Amino acid sequence: MNTIQSTSYPVYFQNNGYDAINSFISKKDFKTVFVLVDENTHKHCLPILQQEITVDVVLEIIEIESGEVNKNLGTCMSIWQALTDLGADRKSLLINMGGGVITDMGGFVASAYKRGIQFINIPSTLLSMVDASVGGKTGVDLGVLKNQIGLFADPEMVVIDTLYLKSLSEKETTSGMAEIIKYGLTYDSNLWNGFTTPKNKLGLEALIHRSIEIKNEVVLEDRLEKSLRKILNFGHTIGHAVESYFLDTDHKTNLTHGEAIALGMITEAYLSTKLLDFPESDLAVIKSTIVNIFGKVPVLTEDYEAIIDLMKHDKKNINGQVFFVLLRGIEKYEIDCKVPVALISESLDYYRA
Amino acid sequence: MNTIQSTSYPVYFQNNGYDAINSFISKKDFKTVFVLVDENTHKHCLPILQQEITVDVVLEIIEIESGEVNKNLGTCMSIWQALTDLGADRKSLLINMGGGVITDMGGFVASAYKRGIQFINIPSTLLSMVDASVGGKTGVDLGVLKNQIGLFADPEMVVIDTLYLKSLSEKETTSGMAEIIKYGLTYDSNLWNGFTTPKNKLGLEALIHRSIEIKNEVVLEDRLEKSLRKILNFGHTIGHAVESYFLDTDHKTNLTHGEAIALGMITEAYLSTKLLDFPESDLAVIKSTIVNIFGKVPVLTEDYEAIIDLMKHDKKNINGQVFFVLLRGIEKYEIDCKVPVALISESLDYYRA
Repeated sequence: MNTIQSTSYPVYFQNNGYDAINSFISKKDFKTVFVLVDENTHKHCLPILQQEITVDVVLEIIEIESGEVNKNLGTCMSIWQALTDLGADRKSLLINMGGGVITDMGGFVASAYKRGIQFINIPSTLLSMVDASVGGKTGVDLGVLKNQIGLFADPEMVVIDTLYLKSLSEKETTSGMAEIIKYGLTYDSNLWNGFTTPKNKLGLEALIHRSIEIKNEVVLEDRLEKSLRKILNFGHTIGHAVESYFLDTDHKTNLTHGEAIALGMITEAYLSTKLLDFPESDLAVIKSTIVNIFGKVPVLTEDYEAIIDLMKHDKKNINGQVFFVLLRGIEKYEIDCKVPVALISESLDYYRA
Repeated sequence: MNTIQSTSYPVYFQNNGYDAINSFISKKDFKTVFVLVDENTHKHCLPILQQEITVDVVLEIIEIESGEVNKNLGTCMSIWQALTDLGADRKSLLINMGGGVITDMGGFVASAYKRGIQFINIPSTLLSMVDASVGGKTGVDLGVLKNQIGLFADPEMVVIDTLYLKSLSEKETTSGMAEIIKYGLTYDSNLWNGFTTPKNKLGLEALIHRSIEIKNEVVLEDRLEKSLRKILNFGHTIGHAVESYFLDTDHKTNLTHGEAIALGMITEAYLSTKLLDFPESDLAVIKSTIVNIFGKVPVLTEDYEAIIDLMKHDKKNINGQVFFVLLRGIEKYEIDCKVPVALISESLDYYRA
């Protein structure tokens, strides 16, 4: 697959990626390279990387515990301390190998260590490949607020290898599909049609490549999220709030990001029919297609108030007003839409019906 | 005094600064502005600012405890939480009002809050005026390691008002003089001559203006510290290590930054005579002039080993090698000098003699 050139760095696929890493290490003459992993990528993914790195360099492994609950400043401090203890200096390199937690947090850690060291991202989940590999967003959570602390910072390169996906559960792979569907609905009807008409569906590698290509086009045009980039939030305004709510409520089971965004896309498509004349027939297809893949999240009427309350803390809010990205049709988005609170409840009713 | 234009922002003096703040708030239509202070600047400096801000805006005050010991990620987290609780969004403004702890830490906090909000620095000590007002360095300490975590990030503007210095003790004012002497020794013999020949000495405002002008010239030429900017480290390689050592050793009294850098400049001038033929006569004048202003720090032979060990953790080190900025003469610097460890001990002996 062709390399995709992002803002200041390339996204390499398969073996091109390892060639690039080996050249980079040689050229920069690194003696030691630091690799951030969790217990899963340590076991399943690191051995592949170790085999592919053929130049003479010491890999120092820093392992953290997996899970969104560890994406916080406490974990950052332990990584910074580990880098310090292992003698990482200003010219060191950090390779972040894992899902979005590792690449988001590792990017932040690298960018703020001694005022910035270089880093490379190797996403190991479908979600982090299609969502986090371009865009330069790094960050960690502050309490329940996702990515409240972070920076815009670019890696030296990103390496995509679908071999890493083999160790994922079906649930984790499915989770990443929600973002791919989002690119289809907001930006590429052909991509979306692959989901509604299975004979058109692309293979996994092609889906990943096209998704990164789309995200990259969007980010290159609007890195700082003034307009176009906001389409990436489709499904995420309600989706993020539901995800945070389930994460923070004792008697609820945590959702995958995909399950939450699946709910978000159905409800926000519903809002689109009410506010922008999005076709009801498309809404019905969206709901049946997405529910078919993701099933339904057990959200209840009594949860609505807390979920709507969480939306008010979204980073995208200005002066306390919640804004949505909605659709006039497939591929036809409208940013900065205001939505009455009553309609949000109605959209959740529609989802549950 | 004339405004000094730095990389991407101006440094205003006295009333020009308040005019600029008022215009900025009006133009950007801020409803609320957040002000970071410590208990000292809250009491002595904030009332001046409150009087000078004449536009209609709410000032939300965030107070932290003063002192280098609080320049850490724990304090950052409490400021981030306060900003969150007070409803600060992506378009908010933070004014950092205080010494280097407040401006360094406040710049980092602003730059990493929701991936970056705007900030203005109002330094309230002589040291932070002449040292931290240009250069874009932000950061906090990690354990004993100074500024281990941080970023290069620019404020919207810096405002210098000597009125804030009136509440400082003589010791604090003297502390800032060390950096001014450093600019003289490395970059401007006229400025240095003002210290050796009192009739040539500039007034306080002129000393501050000239110091910022010099630092700005240096930073504009070499923001990322590849070459020229390293001269700003003169006196700091040994000075920082001594400062950290005294801070972290129970039976030692904490030093002011100026006292530590005064020691650093004398010892590094000594190294310069041994390695670069810096004139012995100039060394003698440097020692007597600086000791006359700062007195002597109670450093002992038994402290040497720990101090030298701390130098190995300096952010400027590459592959474990400690580099120095030394002098061939006044205004004539040499960067990246290697120094044998035995000579460092000798330079401390010279200081104490």
